[in-house]
Amino acid sequence: MRLAELSERSGVSTATIKYYLREGLLPPGHRVSATTAEYGEDHLRRLRLVRALIQVGQVPVTTAREVLRHVDDDSLGRTIRLGAALWALPHGPEPDEGDEAVAAARREVDRLLAMLGWSTARELGALSPVHRSLVVAVATLIRLGYAWDAELMAPYAELMHQVAVRDLDFVETHPSEAEKVETAVAATVLFQPVLKALHQLAQEEESARRYGL
Amino acid sequence: MRLAELSERSGVSTATIKYYLREGLLPPGHRVSATTAEYGEDHLRRLRLVRALIQVGQVPVTTAREVLRHVDDDSLGRTIRLGAALWALPHGPEPDEGDEAVAAARREVDRLLAMLGWSTARELGALSPVHRSLVVAVATLIRLGYAWDAELMAPYAELMHQVAVRDLDFVETHPSEAEKVETAVAATVLFQPVLKALHQLAQEEESARRYGL
Repeated sequence: MRLAELSERSGVSTATIKYYLREGLLPPGHRVSATTAEYGEDHLRRLRLVRALIQVGQVPVTTAREVLRHVDDDSLGRTIRLGAALWALPHGPEPDEGDEAVAAARREVDRLLAMLGWSTARELGALSPVHRSLVVAVATLIRLGYAWDAELMAPYAELMHQVAVRDLDFVETHPSEAEKVETAVAATVLFQPVLKALHQLAQEEESARRYGL
Repeated sequence: MRLAELSERSGVSTATIKYYLREGLLPPGHRVSATTAEYGEDHLRRLRLVRALIQVGQVPVTTAREVLRHVDDDSLGRTIRLGAALWALPHGPEPDEGDEAVAAARREVDRLLAMLGWSTARELGALSPVHRSLVVAVATLIRLGYAWDAELMAPYAELMHQVAVRDLDFVETHPSEAEKVETAVAATVLFQPVLKALHQLAQEEESARRYGL
């Protein structure tokens, strides 16, 4: 398809598409003459992912380019490739290592991972920005005086593991390796608000069931 | 306890506590002389909630005051009181009613709630800002071209319902009605980052189990 059709089918203006091309977020089309290029379904899919990252995830352009570099690196195994892409996303503040609450949080997270038998999470440990985000979130609870430990977290972690199983099942419904990795990255950015809203809606529902309106 | 002790036990500076008192976020202490007041455990607890809202949830002071007004309104039933407090929290952009994707998202959310038999969520419908956030989140997915329907959401919703059951079980471990409502509001703000990190950690773990590192 030509640029105009790519714009129409994606809902992204031609000016924005040209900007993404210049910034290297979208691979160039197949040149058919000095002034026109052909784009394919893979461009449409990539455009979707770029919008998910930039417009929904509010990821800076340089970060998005970094994420996409990992998405496209098919020399890596899927977990590493995906991991590298997800790790490149913004993950909030780093834990303050001098802080007592951070030390306490790290102990509880370590105990939790041992209880669950999550061996990859244990092996990667603080190398993973996700692991560090969890430590920061738990430290905040501890600092505010909420008793929050591995035993309290374990059932939540088991449920989130069931959510992750569904996520990967969904990713696997996509035929090509490129689509699988792209869908997984888009899902991380786009499903989060859906899950959050479902969670709060479920809280309202369960509260009404227990206590009435 | 005196102001100095309240400050030490809460980790909040006396200047900040005085600011919260002036802004009506913290009820005044029991005056024992012209210059000193006594504070109790309920002040400590309230201070924790105020910090959770303002420092972690980044809720504006006027919004926090609105949330707390509902928390303190014991003329209301628990679901309504909690609901009113949670509804006063920021909930992102409103759905754009002229948008095709919003109409499609609303149809899928309605179908989902019917499938699940969530009668309160159906009854409250778009009155609830949480319901509206879900419509906005689903509309974003649809607009970006992801096929996302009630059937895909249902298992996620069932899992988030199990999470909500645990949330309310945790809330019920607190003895007084005031603590229950305060904990529920704090949980909404503070557990979200923990759940999100657990979810991503579970994705890493499950991916490594399926595909290796």
